[in-house]
Formats: sequence, C-alpha cells, structure tokens
Amino acid sequence: MHIQYPDGTVLCKVAGVDVENILVTLPTNEEQRARLHALVPDWPIKFSSFSKATVEMVAKANILIGNVPVKLLSAAQSLKWMQLSSSGAAEQSDALGEKVLLTCVTGTYGTIVSEHMLAMLLTVMKKFPLYMENQTKSMWTPPVPFPMVAGSTILVLGTGDIGSKFARIVHAMGAKVLGCKRTYATKPIAGFDALYTIDELDTIIPLADVIALALPGTEATYHLFDARRLRMMKTDAILINVGRGSAIDTEALCDVLEEGHLAAAALDVFEKEPLPKYNCLWHAPRLLITPHAAGGYLAGNSIHRIFDISLENLRRFRDGEPLLHKVDRKTGYQEATDDGN
Amino acid sequence: MHIQYPDGTVLCKVAGVDVENILVTLPTNEEQRARLHALVPDWPIKFSSFSKATVEMVAKANILIGNVPVKLLSAAQSLKWMQLSSSGAAEQSDALGEKVLLTCVTGTYGTIVSEHMLAMLLTVMKKFPLYMENQTKSMWTPPVPFPMVAGSTILVLGTGDIGSKFARIVHAMGAKVLGCKRTYATKPIAGFDALYTIDELDTIIPLADVIALALPGTEATYHLFDARRLRMMKTDAILINVGRGSAIDTEALCDVLEEGHLAAAALDVFEKEPLPKYNCLWHAPRLLITPHAAGGYLAGNSIHRIFDISLENLRRFRDGEPLLHKVDRKTGYQEATDDGN
Repeated sequence: MHIQYPDGTVLCKVAGVDVENILVTLPTNEEQRARLHALVPDWPIKFSSFSKATVEMVAKANILIGNVPVKLLSAAQSLKWMQLSSSGAAEQSDALGEKVLLTCVTGTYGTIVSEHMLAMLLTVMKKFPLYMENQTKSMWTPPVPFPMVAGSTILVLGTGDIGSKFARIVHAMGAKVLGCKRTYATKPIAGFDALYTIDELDTIIPLADVIALALPGTEATYHLFDARRLRMMKTDAILINVGRGSAIDTEALCDVLEEGHLAAAALDVFEKEPLPKYNCLWHAPRLLITPHAAGGYLAGNSIHRIFDISLENLRRFRDGEPLLHKVDRKTGYQEATDDGN
Repeated sequence: MHIQYPDGTVLCKVAGVDVENILVTLPTNEEQRARLHALVPDWPIKFSSFSKATVEMVAKANILIGNVPVKLLSAAQSLKWMQLSSSGAAEQSDALGEKVLLTCVTGTYGTIVSEHMLAMLLTVMKKFPLYMENQTKSMWTPPVPFPMVAGSTILVLGTGDIGSKFARIVHAMGAKVLGCKRTYATKPIAGFDALYTIDELDTIIPLADVIALALPGTEATYHLFDARRLRMMKTDAILINVGRGSAIDTEALCDVLEEGHLAAAALDVFEKEPLPKYNCLWHAPRLLITPHAAGGYLAGNSIHRIFDISLENLRRFRDGEPLLHKVDRKTGYQEATDDGN
C-alpha cells in the first residue's frame, strides 16, 4: 500500500518499510504518547510544543502533528503531511509546498467557538459590561433597555462548521438568520433563513442588527469590514469577530466606535496577536476583547477530539488510506463537504 | 353578561351598566391611553406609575392594571380585578382578598428572561469577567480553560414559561437538561430530558454542572438553597437565579463562595432589592450581579406585549368573558396550562 499525493505521485511505501520522522506539537499526556508510539513503533517521534518548536525540528520532520508558528514552515522541506490543530488552514496552505498533504480539524471547533460567539453577543447585547462596572462600585442602577436575539436579524459571514452552528442556535432562539458565503449556495443550510454570496454583502449589511464574522484569513477576506462597510451597518448594530482579525480594519473600527456608531463590538481575533499594548482597541468604547479564547484550545474536550483525529489520520497515513479533513490546497479550505463550507 | 368570581358569586353587571374606576400604573404612551379610553369610554381611568401610586388611588380602584408596591394592596378594598405586569403573582395573591380576580402576564417574560439567563450563564462559564478586567489594563493573557454548555448537565428549577424556554435553548446547544417542579410531571415538557419534583431535589443537585433557578417567591421556595444544599453542589458548578431572591440564603451563598465552593454564581434577583449597599454579595468572589434586569421591563417588545394582554383582558372583563392568564388563588401560580407550570 502507498500514499498518493495531490499531484498523483506516490512518495512513500508504508507498512513499516520507510521510516517517517514525526514532530508532535499538540499537547499530549503519557497515555496519548504511548498510543502514538504503539501505532507506528518504528517511526521516531519528537514531542515539542507550538512555542518551543525550532527550525531544526521542523526541517527534519516528515510528519507534523499540531501547529507551529507559520514562519517556521518555510523550513519544512522534508514534510509530507501536516495535521493542523486549528480549523483555519489558509496561512499554512500558503506557506507549505503544494505537494504537502494538509489536514485540519474542521468540525472540532464548531461547538466551542459558537458558544463563545453567543457569549460575546449576549454579554454586549444585554449591557453586562455596564452592570459589571457598577458591581465594582456596589452600585445598583435601574436596568437599561436592551434588545433581544429573538426577533432580531443576524448576519453570519462564513457558513462553515462554526458559522452554521452559531446560526442554528440563534435561529432556535427566534432570530432571522442571513448567511453569507464565498460561493453561491445550491441548497439550504440548517439555521439560515437566506443565503447570499460575498458579492451581495453591501446590500445585506444595512439589514442586520448583528453581524458575526467566522471567516478564514484569506486575501478575499482581508479588511472586508473597512471604514465604508462599518459605516453601512445600522447605528445600533453589534459586530462580532471570531474568525481571523484581518477581516476587520482595526483603525477604522476604533474610529467608528469613537464616533458613536455601533451599539457594541466584541472581538476574539486581531490583526496582530497578542494585541499590542498600545493598540487603539484596548480603550475603544463599547468594545469587548477576549484573547483568542473562543477555541478554548486546552478546554473541554477539544484537545481530546484533536488528538483522536490526529491518531486516526496517522493510522490512515500508515495504512495508505485517505485522510480525514483534507485541506483543498487551491482554496485553503477543507475540501467540500455537506456542512456548507 | 356577568363576571363570575372564584367563589361563584356574580359581583358586577357589565356592558356599561356599572362604572368601574380604573387605575393604570403600567407605562403607556398617548396612543395606548386613547385605546384604553375607547374600550371603556364610561369608566374613569387614572394613570399613575409603580412608584407614584398612592394608598388613596389603590383604595378607590375597582380595576388595577399594572403593579404597585405590595404593601399598598391592603388598601385595595374596592378592587375586583388586578392585572399584574409581572410573571410572578405569589406576593400579590397573598396580599389581596380572595375574591379579587388576579391575572398575570405569564408567557410575556419567557423569551426575554431566558435570554438573560443564558447571557448570565455564558458570561461566567466562559470567564468573561477575567478578560474584561484584563482589558481595562490593556493586558493580553492566554485563554483560561472553561467548560461548555454542550455535554454539561443543567438542572432547571421551575418548569414554567421562563424555565422551559431556557431549557429548550440549552438543550438545543447539547446540554442534558433536568427539570424540577412542584408537582409530579404526568407528561414530558419540551427541552427537558428528565423531570423531578422538589422532594427529589437533594438527589439531583450533586449531578448538575449548572443549576438555574426560575422559581416564584413562595413559602415553599424560601431559602430552598441554604448552606446545606449549596454545599451539595459540585465544587465547580455554576448557580444562576432569575426567579425570586428569597430562593437563596444570601449569607450562606457569600460564605460558600468565600470558601472557594462553586465555579461561579450569577444573580439577577435578591432577598432585598435594591441590593443594600453593604450586602456581602457586592464583593463576593466569582459572582455576577445584574440589577433585576432580566425582564427588561421597558425593553424590547415586553412592554407592548404586556399592554396588549391588559387591553384584551379589559375587553374580556367588560364583556364578561374569562380572562387570560388567571392566577390560581390557592397556589399563587397561573392556573394549570400545557406549558408545565
């Protein structure tokens, strides 16, 4: 049995004939390490972490399980397959030679990130920052008026696993949900009342009470929300971003919030992360910042699910079977599935 | 046509033969006032407010539309019918003579309060207070681990309109939802995986990752969560209260939180409201306080819905038809319906 690569060449014989050097940066416990060794007993495995991985480690690896800083990937000249621990794959896809197999963990983050999106939306919509500030002063104030999810119009950009899980929840809560995706929708997606393409964005922005971004960081999404589009939003609309920070022009958002436009914004992702100490966003009014926390990398069951996908894909790689969650190297997205990507 | 009262007596003739004095404390606009006058042109209507209503006004009223401070109700000797603007009716039911018809607005608050409950739960579950404190310091910190609604066990006390709407949302998000109600459930209620009675409470408290209270303020619910039951909760559980503050022993909750028990608590209701300046809750750790804001009295469409119910009930009262949302004066609850009350 063999592995067939995207260009059709067969690069390695499997079943223990060739030795593959594996670099694992995904956090693992003893038991998980033992399971990896047991699966491929003849293949050397180096365990490191996202922040401790070096150019040398990456250069030597034939298989990379877990993310490393994107700038290290230019050294990955021996790499045959990279299993990402993230849902987004665009930056890695750009950085890696096109013969490298790339798999991601789409589907793993949908639940946890959509819960975080909902937390961000409800926290700002229900004016909790005001109550929490009052609480520090032992100050009871009359409740302030606030809108409801039920009856509101929510525009979700990105209809993949994360966007569609969020859509399903707010739809169940009584919102009218509009979806916006790259390509024309040939069939309905659960949770969305209507679907549009990015080309139609300018016509639907003014309709939305809430705009929630769950977009990958591609050229097409770069500064999609610039000053012009931010000002097209309803004055009392709410903007949420959990995809990639590059989808919003940071300076423009600061300006727009300072002007009093938008009821609130909540961001989990930023153009530069960590968000620099002197960035205007830190003190922008009506803005909630969470530190790229939505994925809860080490939280809940995410880390276990990522390990399980990685282990299954390693078995498939060993046995020459097609891998799960393969990224289409032309688009930087997971290959087309039924989930609306 | 006549109005028949709970004890079977017929107290008033209708169709304009008798004159009823109406006191309206519900906030109304010009158009709504005109609609009230048009409905009963011969009946005098006095417009006031919750805080401005006087003993004299209440003493004179045959019909009261809107809430007044409960202590004023002992003066309501001429009252035939009171239309509450609240969902809970227990205190008013206790305070009023048993011949007085009492109607509430159950169903009006379910959506808005359940959204607030979810906002409280997600804000504390996802550790937003920590991120928000860091934000004031322009401080980026690594995301902290947090649990998910999906996969958690959520116990909801009170399976009426508010509790069951909340249950349906968190059930749709993937939680296992246990419900606890006064009486034995003879049939399933949408959103709940299992139903228990209050007698079984001690056996189910230790199972819950989240306990959410949406209970009326009755003798049976007074200090239902005392020190013993609070300590029966999982160490890392979350407690939410949107019903009535009397369901939780305030001092005990402060102690338990100080001890490090419970991951967090979020309260919208308190034993005394406004919460006194020197109450221990203001500075209890891991506690979120919102100022009885869940109902968003003047927010969203609530106020319009309450007016619409009041107007329809006034028409029914005038025409001698059965009123909507009648409170069972024996229990202080809305009379049995299909919604699980």
